[in-house]
Amino acid sequence: MASSNFVAEHSFSVEGKSWVLNSPDPPGFLQKILHSIKKNVASDSQKKHSPSARVLALLTTIFPVLTWGRNYKPSKFKNDLIAGLTLASLSIPQSIGYAGLANLDPQYGLYGSVVPPLIYSVMGTSQELAIGPVAVVSLLISSMISKLVDPAADPVSYRKLVFTATFFAGTFQALFGILRLGFLIDFLSHAAIVGFMAGAAIVIGLQQLKSLLGISHFTTKTDVVSVLEAVVNSLRTSWYPLNFVLGCSFLIFILITRFIGKKKKKLFWLPAISPVISVIISTLIVYLTRADEHGVKIIKHFKGGLNPSSLNQLEFNSPHLGEVAKIGFICATIALTEAVAVGRSFASIKGYNLDGNKEMLAMGFMNIAGSMSSCYVTTGSFSRTAVNVSAGCESAVSNIVMAITVFISLQVMTKLLYYTPLAILASIILSALPGLIDYNEAYHIWKVDKVDFLACAGAFFGVLFASVEIGLLVAVGISFGKLILNSIRSDVEELGRLPGSDIFCDKAQYPGVLDVSGVRVIRLNSGSFCFANANPIKERITSYLTEKDQATIGIILDMSNVMSIDSSGIVALEEIHKKLVSRNVHLAIANPRWKVIHKLKIGGFVEKVGSDCIFLTVNEAVDVCLSSKSATC
Amino acid sequence: MASSNFVAEHSFSVEGKSWVLNSPDPPGFLQKILHSIKKNVASDSQKKHSPSARVLALLTTIFPVLTWGRNYKPSKFKNDLIAGLTLASLSIPQSIGYAGLANLDPQYGLYGSVVPPLIYSVMGTSQELAIGPVAVVSLLISSMISKLVDPAADPVSYRKLVFTATFFAGTFQALFGILRLGFLIDFLSHAAIVGFMAGAAIVIGLQQLKSLLGISHFTTKTDVVSVLEAVVNSLRTSWYPLNFVLGCSFLIFILITRFIGKKKKKLFWLPAISPVISVIISTLIVYLTRADEHGVKIIKHFKGGLNPSSLNQLEFNSPHLGEVAKIGFICATIALTEAVAVGRSFASIKGYNLDGNKEMLAMGFMNIAGSMSSCYVTTGSFSRTAVNVSAGCESAVSNIVMAITVFISLQVMTKLLYYTPLAILASIILSALPGLIDYNEAYHIWKVDKVDFLACAGAFFGVLFASVEIGLLVAVGISFGKLILNSIRSDVEELGRLPGSDIFCDKAQYPGVLDVSGVRVIRLNSGSFCFANANPIKERITSYLTEKDQATIGIILDMSNVMSIDSSGIVALEEIHKKLVSRNVHLAIANPRWKVIHKLKIGGFVEKVGSDCIFLTVNEAVDVCLSSKSATC
Repeated sequence: MASSNFVAEHSFSVEGKSWVLNSPDPPGFLQKILHSIKKNVASDSQKKHSPSARVLALLTTIFPVLTWGRNYKPSKFKNDLIAGLTLASLSIPQSIGYAGLANLDPQYGLYGSVVPPLIYSVMGTSQELAIGPVAVVSLLISSMISKLVDPAADPVSYRKLVFTATFFAGTFQALFGILRLGFLIDFLSHAAIVGFMAGAAIVIGLQQLKSLLGISHFTTKTDVVSVLEAVVNSLRTSWYPLNFVLGCSFLIFILITRFIGKKKKKLFWLPAISPVISVIISTLIVYLTRADEHGVKIIKHFKGGLNPSSLNQLEFNSPHLGEVAKIGFICATIALTEAVAVGRSFASIKGYNLDGNKEMLAMGFMNIAGSMSSCYVTTGSFSRTAVNVSAGCESAVSNIVMAITVFISLQVMTKLLYYTPLAILASIILSALPGLIDYNEAYHIWKVDKVDFLACAGAFFGVLFASVEIGLLVAVGISFGKLILNSIRSDVEELGRLPGSDIFCDKAQYPGVLDVSGVRVIRLNSGSFCFANANPIKERITSYLTEKDQATIGIILDMSNVMSIDSSGIVALEEIHKKLVSRNVHLAIANPRWKVIHKLKIGGFVEKVGSDCIFLTVNEAVDVCLSSKSATC
Repeated sequence: MASSNFVAEHSFSVEGKSWVLNSPDPPGFLQKILHSIKKNVASDSQKKHSPSARVLALLTTIFPVLTWGRNYKPSKFKNDLIAGLTLASLSIPQSIGYAGLANLDPQYGLYGSVVPPLIYSVMGTSQELAIGPVAVVSLLISSMISKLVDPAADPVSYRKLVFTATFFAGTFQALFGILRLGFLIDFLSHAAIVGFMAGAAIVIGLQQLKSLLGISHFTTKTDVVSVLEAVVNSLRTSWYPLNFVLGCSFLIFILITRFIGKKKKKLFWLPAISPVISVIISTLIVYLTRADEHGVKIIKHFKGGLNPSSLNQLEFNSPHLGEVAKIGFICATIALTEAVAVGRSFASIKGYNLDGNKEMLAMGFMNIAGSMSSCYVTTGSFSRTAVNVSAGCESAVSNIVMAITVFISLQVMTKLLYYTPLAILASIILSALPGLIDYNEAYHIWKVDKVDFLACAGAFFGVLFASVEIGLLVAVGISFGKLILNSIRSDVEELGRLPGSDIFCDKAQYPGVLDVSGVRVIRLNSGSFCFANANPIKERITSYLTEKDQATIGIILDMSNVMSIDSSGIVALEEIHKKLVSRNVHLAIANPRWKVIHKLKIGGFVEKVGSDCIFLTVNEAVDVCLSSKSATC
């Protein structure tokens, strides 16, 4: 190496070092929290100072309808009307079916398609989301509350707990929104959701066997083994094949219309209204043939009219209150996860952004209001949102149209549904399930990451063979376990110089890189250098000395990946330094991050070890190491 | 920029890109596990192929005495003899005291200073560690097993559970060693240990009030409130001031000798033997004045002789088995944490390495053997190891000398200890406690990291006001919570060019760096780009476009910190790309790591987005962005 080069490198290295050591202190813990609060408050009030402007800003934040409503044109209404009517024709049979899945009378499902969509339409930010009861949340509610109160033995107490859980779910959702905890729903990893949804779909499908086979006595458990046992037992004793024939024929009809709808985009309305057609035709068949006297199970009488108040049914002094709050929390999370996933994917297609926190606030208020007007937990439905979009909805007005239509049906049509066979509702639910099972995505996850797939499979089999909650728990556990293991890895990797440059790269990733003789460049492969990995990392680094030749005169630690260090990490660095000094080997630290160099300074490391061994880049550190070698030799 | 420069940069960038895209695939999940197993097996058998050599290698691995024993010289023995005798003089009173803390008769403490040190001396790798009962583990055992069986009401069942817990603790420790799970003991962060030890020291001190005040009826709880209540209640009814006077005078004596020992290094033996001197003098006083008839509590009779077998007392069909195994696990972890921390700090002073896995194996076997010979969980003691070192120990032989001395005492001296007052034992325990409270370290932790300090304070107050287990749980919870939050941060930082170089650095850390006009360089500030932070990161990156001017023609994502990506991360990248394309802004990805580029390839990202936007360095990416601008302008 030419000496002129040396001088140039040296002067630069001195400068680079001063960059590292003289950087300003990063903001402290309290400063950061204050800054974050200030930012949130400022963004809420839009920094307007007149009180009326502030109130207006707050109102438009809470009610996005005040913004988009002003630009709403009559031409849009035509599209929303068509979409809303299409939506209602799918909502009515689905809502009745999901109410059955939640062990509630049919009207409670329909109520959920009236009040919550109206509230969402003025508070929500999504233009497409179709609000109402959904299959997975119905299953969750019934499987968890059935453990506290038997819905068959004491339907009134059961219903009270359902409303109370709904109230809690709404409160949690609103709190998430107000406290800007939007990130909480991200804690269910994509893989876990795929597995959970697929498992839930199969469990929901199995629950439909009750109606499809006309079984009277069924289990309240949801795992595959219990359900199949109950089915086999019933098949031995009493079941009514007519239900099965009826259900299967209309299931096939619905599936065929869906197939046609997929092939010809113009016939999108056919799969959307085929459920309501099935209901009408099958009701007529049963009414005309009086098949209910031959074992075909029918809805029978249910109460119509306006949503009754359920304020007096919220039970806050129930002995199960803690459990109910927990159920509310789980339902809140799952409901939000489904809604935000659906909402985001359609928003991304249309090119606008869904504000997670506003969505949570809207869902929270809609469920709190729902819990006071005889609704159970509602959210954005996957299948109905897709129908809404393909029917050409332009705004949340389609939800209003849908709600009004369902409301009118509740006034005039409940008597017409007396003879509707339960098997038809089962077939409508079954037809919506394949959308929840995403084989392709599961295969994709398997291909990309085996541990992610484990979380997916854990959620799937947990839901299938244990219970819905255990499936969720397994999924969250595996996801976070992986995260922890990833972040405390004690990997280090050796770097080499990219030929003809001053860039240093991983030797394993780029086999063509060149060693620097006498100097080993080691990069810490972990974002935290902390209690959980300080000792193994220390051992790995010092083992580079004993394993290999004695020609090493310097070890350079590239710290560019280390984003946080704690006192254990600093102690480990000090011990590495001591060990290397005892063997006459230089230790150099390259590119410490802002927080890390700050910790090294206040932790006394820089003082103890001297600022000579800290460099801005690996290249500098290598050059200084080599020049010191030539100086001593 | 000169055009010649352009060409040069361009040709390099093409080469750099091919480096990134053509790197070999990283080893898969299974490959890595197989490799790790192979490495472990290979290092165990030292790659020797003759069977006898293999057996010998295995034996020397399990029994390090076979290695160091061959070089043991008589000159060393003199030092070890003196150290061992000094150690014994401290061990005997401490062991009796700790047995009391563990709610066991005095001999069980002494037994623990016979068998376990002998086994450790042939299996352990530390030259200094003094093995025997220690205060914190004694407290843990008594506080947890007292919840299952009342030691006052049923001492036999209590003892059986203690031995069974000891057996489990040893088994867990041995398993950790065999399965090379040494990293498990690192899961208690340094901060948590400091807080836990300080809290435990205060709790242990409060327990000594029983003996020091001569109280007969005491609480079995360990929290401050319960203990102080019990003390206040007893002070109102019956307590014996003579105990207090005796205990305090000898406590002052011991503390004075320790002060002298610290001042004059040559008098190191004075604080070491002052406890045994206190025992002798106080026993004589009580014997001569018959103070025990005036309320001074004394040890009275206890059984001497050889450690009896306790094999038949191990209870594996107890209804509490699960609980006992849990207690064993907790004791195993805490005991290892203390021993390895102590052993490592002295090994580092002497300049040799402590093998964590071998230590675990040795401790495991010593506790399994202990559980069969009437000992409860033993480990390396902090205070006695320090005495051992200052007495000049050379090897584990000092432990053998100590064990033999304690064994002889058990044969001949138990009758002499009949009149020893309990208050003296309390003062000996109290005198050892200040070493467990490390104010300076707590202050250092506060200075370096506020969240670490929170874990420290959580452990401290948890132990003090709730229970030992809850304190531990709080500490582990806070430590891991911080780790998770750190690793899923959604921070991004903007980079600028260091003047006169092609290095890009954080603009906040180095305020002197320069912007590149038209291009924003953003570095992801998190080790994982995954389900837990993909959405917030996506929003932050896309917000750079809306917030700022329209002059931006390219966004460069520096991925060098991202060590793992999952399917959610890939989806987020795809969405970022889509968003930028819709606004005519280039997206470039710089320096993806080995695993990340592999995932991007198999996840289909590279295929969808095109390999044009992937670069080896930020500099390359910037140059290509700028050249494409000049091309289009």
